[in-house]
Amino acid sequence: MSRHSQDNRAQDSQEQPLMEQNRQRLFGGSQIRYQHESSALGCTMLFSVYLPPGACKEQTVPAVYFLSGLTCNDQNFSTKSGAQRVAAELGVALIIPDTSPRGEHVADDEGYDLGQGAGFYVNATEAPWQSNFQMYDYITRELPALVEAHLPVNERRAISGHSMGGHGALMIAARNPERYQSVSAFSPIVHPSACPWGEKAFTAYLGTDKDVWSEYDSVELIKENGWHLPLLVDQGEDDEFLKEQLLTRDLIAVVQDCADVRIRFQSGYDHSYYFIATFIAEHLRFHARHLRAE
Amino acid sequence: MSRHSQDNRAQDSQEQPLMEQNRQRLFGGSQIRYQHESSALGCTMLFSVYLPPGACKEQTVPAVYFLSGLTCNDQNFSTKSGAQRVAAELGVALIIPDTSPRGEHVADDEGYDLGQGAGFYVNATEAPWQSNFQMYDYITRELPALVEAHLPVNERRAISGHSMGGHGALMIAARNPERYQSVSAFSPIVHPSACPWGEKAFTAYLGTDKDVWSEYDSVELIKENGWHLPLLVDQGEDDEFLKEQLLTRDLIAVVQDCADVRIRFQSGYDHSYYFIATFIAEHLRFHARHLRAE
Repeated sequence: MSRHSQDNRAQDSQEQPLMEQNRQRLFGGSQIRYQHESSALGCTMLFSVYLPPGACKEQTVPAVYFLSGLTCNDQNFSTKSGAQRVAAELGVALIIPDTSPRGEHVADDEGYDLGQGAGFYVNATEAPWQSNFQMYDYITRELPALVEAHLPVNERRAISGHSMGGHGALMIAARNPERYQSVSAFSPIVHPSACPWGEKAFTAYLGTDKDVWSEYDSVELIKENGWHLPLLVDQGEDDEFLKEQLLTRDLIAVVQDCADVRIRFQSGYDHSYYFIATFIAEHLRFHARHLRAE
Repeated sequence: MSRHSQDNRAQDSQEQPLMEQNRQRLFGGSQIRYQHESSALGCTMLFSVYLPPGACKEQTVPAVYFLSGLTCNDQNFSTKSGAQRVAAELGVALIIPDTSPRGEHVADDEGYDLGQGAGFYVNATEAPWQSNFQMYDYITRELPALVEAHLPVNERRAISGHSMGGHGALMIAARNPERYQSVSAFSPIVHPSACPWGEKAFTAYLGTDKDVWSEYDSVELIKENGWHLPLLVDQGEDDEFLKEQLLTRDLIAVVQDCADVRIRFQSGYDHSYYFIATFIAEHLRFHARHLRAE
């Protein structure tokens, strides 16, 4: 990144300061919840950050962005994953965004799988969603710029996520391989164009043109452009959504010849945070290896 | 325990079978939620259990009972502590009861600190509480008998807890030192007769006679009978309840000459589950040492 664009970024971010809502000691580091006015989303947003011990201006740390699934906000991963224990040990920050724009003036739907809590990490083009549901821009640009301008976090980034957030992590990394060192996912929705959750959300947010859907569909993106990053995916074999919604086999089909890709089926595990808690340490160690490599 | 009383226990327990509500794989073991009809409490109860990998009839495991705090049920510790990771490694079960009797026919109060979710682990003597609020009997007798009759869990027990549950763990162990190998607590209410939470609950459940209160007050019990078990207590220095409610110094005053007691103040930590998550591994390793020793 050029000196010029760095300056612009810092300036933009200073106009959107972070307000610290809550700070708690955790594994020797700090779990912090921030509020800010999002220009991408047109609303007030909350997100959580874990800073490992020793992170400071003089010693910035790389970051793992974790995108959560349907119905979640920044608290689910923060309170249930146990990830901070390993992040503290490895010296990486965790950046834990919400899953959609929020607020009374923001469009919503009665279903748990559309609207607030279900942003699907796309830039919506359709009414009534398009005025706030610009989660792709928020996650890829606004949030990292804000974090890297105001927190002791540097530009070495990994991205991970669960379910809808696994879709987000894979899709965002497929479109922006230069911005991430490594990618992982738990129980990701890998082929949203071909499953009920994705079809419902993409129709609402993006309209009916499936060429547009392909821009946000990991399997379709990888078919088109290949896959070029280290990847670790864990999928529970007893996951109740595996066959109808997650379609892991479709991802395997398009990455099977790629280097540095591991997709693992885990016997007996379901779709819950207990699955994430069991394997998050391995995911963070995988990311740390790539975040530290030059 | 004699052959005769073992038989009685098994028979009683068979009349109150455990109904498995939910079972999830977690760190190679099983997180299970059970429902049963409690004779001590006169209502239907839920509790959670973590069984480490390999626990079976032929290879029973010792158990750490974890008593939760105000407003909690069996889910808070289950989902937020990360304890199962270490329990799996150590080969100990976790038994995680609810904090009070439950149900529409059970007395309740509008306050978060009295009634359902706030049983204080006593046997109530006062109306309207006395017909269901018999948590002392439930935790010390009914629940262990049920667990040890129906699950691959043996009679080597440790007890721990948080806040109101820390009070429960200390008080129950002080009264039943022969039933536990070791005791620990996070942010315990150590002297309920002398703090607002305890005064309110004990007045309601036990009446106004402070001699009766002393039977359920750890500091008063230890003053009277001494302390005879290995003990580990962690207390956050930034805990918002430390000065008015928890009164840790009162515990230190009565155990300072006891062997095998460690009471630690942890800088920067508050009253939350993030505090428990940070130190639960050390507590479980402490318990495992004593549970395994002959």
